[in-house]
Amino acid sequence: MSSAIDRRAFRDLSYGLYIVTSRDQEKINGQIVNTAIQVTSDPPRLAVIINKKNLTHALITKSRIFAVSVLEESTPLTFIGPFGFRSGRDIDKFAKVLFKEGVTGCPLVTDHALSVVEAKVFDQIDLGTHTIFVGDVVNSEVIKDGRPLTYQYYHENLKGKSPPNAPTYSGT
Amino acid sequence: MSSAIDRRAFRDLSYGLYIVTSRDQEKINGQIVNTAIQVTSDPPRLAVIINKKNLTHALITKSRIFAVSVLEESTPLTFIGPFGFRSGRDIDKFAKVLFKEGVTGCPLVTDHALSVVEAKVFDQIDLGTHTIFVGDVVNSEVIKDGRPLTYQYYHENLKGKSPPNAPTYSGT
Repeated sequence: MSSAIDRRAFRDLSYGLYIVTSRDQEKINGQIVNTAIQVTSDPPRLAVIINKKNLTHALITKSRIFAVSVLEESTPLTFIGPFGFRSGRDIDKFAKVLFKEGVTGCPLVTDHALSVVEAKVFDQIDLGTHTIFVGDVVNSEVIKDGRPLTYQYYHENLKGKSPPNAPTYSGT
Repeated sequence: MSSAIDRRAFRDLSYGLYIVTSRDQEKINGQIVNTAIQVTSDPPRLAVIINKKNLTHALITKSRIFAVSVLEESTPLTFIGPFGFRSGRDIDKFAKVLFKEGVTGCPLVTDHALSVVEAKVFDQIDLGTHTIFVGDVVNSEVIKDGRPLTYQYYHENLKGKSPPNAPTYSGT
């Protein structure tokens, strides 16, 4: 058997769709992420993968805190767009969005969110283009019941695209 | 706002279902994992979370190689069971399973698999009960087209349970 990488193989992996936010002093930002997972149960820890080019990466790197909002299946593309395809360096992503301040100070997006989780960075891995941030959960809350938006649903039903900064970007 | 952790919030995160295998010399093993994600696109890297109690963890720790098989939606519970709820220390999990040897030497489970990916460990984080292994993809292959099995489908349609060693275990 010879070695070869077929990138179509990666497309079979399953993900949800989330907004990851952070804050450094008065600056807040957030972005769409498909790679957020619970990594341990005891103590509860979450990992998120963030592109180094993104403002959210700079904020987490400085403040060591982040929050995750789990989006509901009925989240419209118009809501996702600014968080996924615009930079917080150019626009205020929170201008038209419902959110509240968490115990860490991170903005917790409650619009179209099933639940919110806040974490303090416990460890990280430098992946070159991205960083894995692993955080100890310090606060979590269910906003409402409902079906979570999956990455598959986003692509198949909402016809959503992946931005080039996504860890799973494959040119489409 | 006061700090409180509601573990129901974590249940809204989405995952797939995979078999992660490894090999150390003549010993091979594999186990069910819901936490496998692509973490970068360039170069392609995958992360898996493995419980330290599991034989697969011991094999990856020694050999620094692992493989991931993405399961199809129609995978029966009877196939998943031995990989998820039994230890390779007690049974030969591969006795009745179709697999082939990959370029790394890892067994690549092709039964009920949409695709297989092999990786060499690039870095890791000790999470206490679990380890995140991040691997450089060295080989990947699409086995067939189809819908991937998601963790949600496994719980809702197959009425599958989570073993205590899962990173997302919550007592149910």
